[in-house]
Amino acid sequence: MPGPNGRGVCVWFTGLSGSGKSTTAEIVIRLLEERGRPVTVLDGDAVREHLSKGLGFDRADRDTNVRRIGYVAGEVVRHGGIAVVAAVSPYRSTRDEARAMVGTDRFVEVFVDTPLEVCEARDVKGWYAKARAGEVKAFTGVDDPYEPPVAPELHLLTVGTTAEANARLVLAELERRGDLAPA
Amino acid sequence: MPGPNGRGVCVWFTGLSGSGKSTTAEIVIRLLEERGRPVTVLDGDAVREHLSKGLGFDRADRDTNVRRIGYVAGEVVRHGGIAVVAAVSPYRSTRDEARAMVGTDRFVEVFVDTPLEVCEARDVKGWYAKARAGEVKAFTGVDDPYEPPVAPELHLLTVGTTAEANARLVLAELERRGDLAPA
Repeated sequence: MPGPNGRGVCVWFTGLSGSGKSTTAEIVIRLLEERGRPVTVLDGDAVREHLSKGLGFDRADRDTNVRRIGYVAGEVVRHGGIAVVAAVSPYRSTRDEARAMVGTDRFVEVFVDTPLEVCEARDVKGWYAKARAGEVKAFTGVDDPYEPPVAPELHLLTVGTTAEANARLVLAELERRGDLAPA
Repeated sequence: MPGPNGRGVCVWFTGLSGSGKSTTAEIVIRLLEERGRPVTVLDGDAVREHLSKGLGFDRADRDTNVRRIGYVAGEVVRHGGIAVVAAVSPYRSTRDEARAMVGTDRFVEVFVDTPLEVCEARDVKGWYAKARAGEVKAFTGVDDPYEPPVAPELHLLTVGTTAEANARLVLAELERRGDLAPA
């Protein structure tokens, strides 16, 4: 059901920890809200607070977490809303399940493609150091795989550009697709 | 944000196990869909499948479950959608938290008021027998309290009437409130 300013859509940021998913997503959310579109934010903080308590970090629980995000995003989209997801979501098949739950043509997969070395050098939250020290197990990129999207709707590089510029690419793509009315 | 056929609203059915919440909710959902309003269904089956894995049955986990339903319902309502919840949701304070998450004026609490003796005599799923035999612990109405709503938006009796008639009372209330366009 289209809302007054466009159609329901899920913008799904995937990438390594520290790749810049949340930073870019935050700007996208601000720009969308400035355009009068309410947004359901499903980033790490929101998911931890509202959805993931009781789940652990093995593959089954991580998949459950991603499916749960996909479920909520799908319901938002069904009512003509926008959901913005920022989740490592490392496994291709699980992202594809989320896509199916949302509706394949309503799913905009945004690959935030920052090299592991760059993420690890930034190590904003200190996770990579802990993973290398063995204090954290099954950490994506260190001892658990990240499966990059094969055909994402958008492929963002973060080295040599800014999160602001990338956010504007996302909005331009939503306009091009007809999910967002032109400014 | 109002949709083309009305405003976002959460219809929250609360009552004992076996009171008729889901039966009434299913008819409400069908009637709403016939009126062109998509509905997010948050009944026992949907919640078990999509939201509650990893949670147990102690009070903390039951509260987390109800808050999680409230969170999803709130996001749906924020985008102008309708969420229909059918959950025992036995604790008054937790239902009030859900109400706050949705927005107090967007929350229609429907108390499905079937006496315990009637629910227990029906015992459709055999839970009451198990609870009386001590095979299930902390079962609402048997060895865990049900706190009835003090001022529900709707108070439905189920003895001497039908789920169909009760569902029509719910739709009439949504129309009266202006959440649903008249048929």
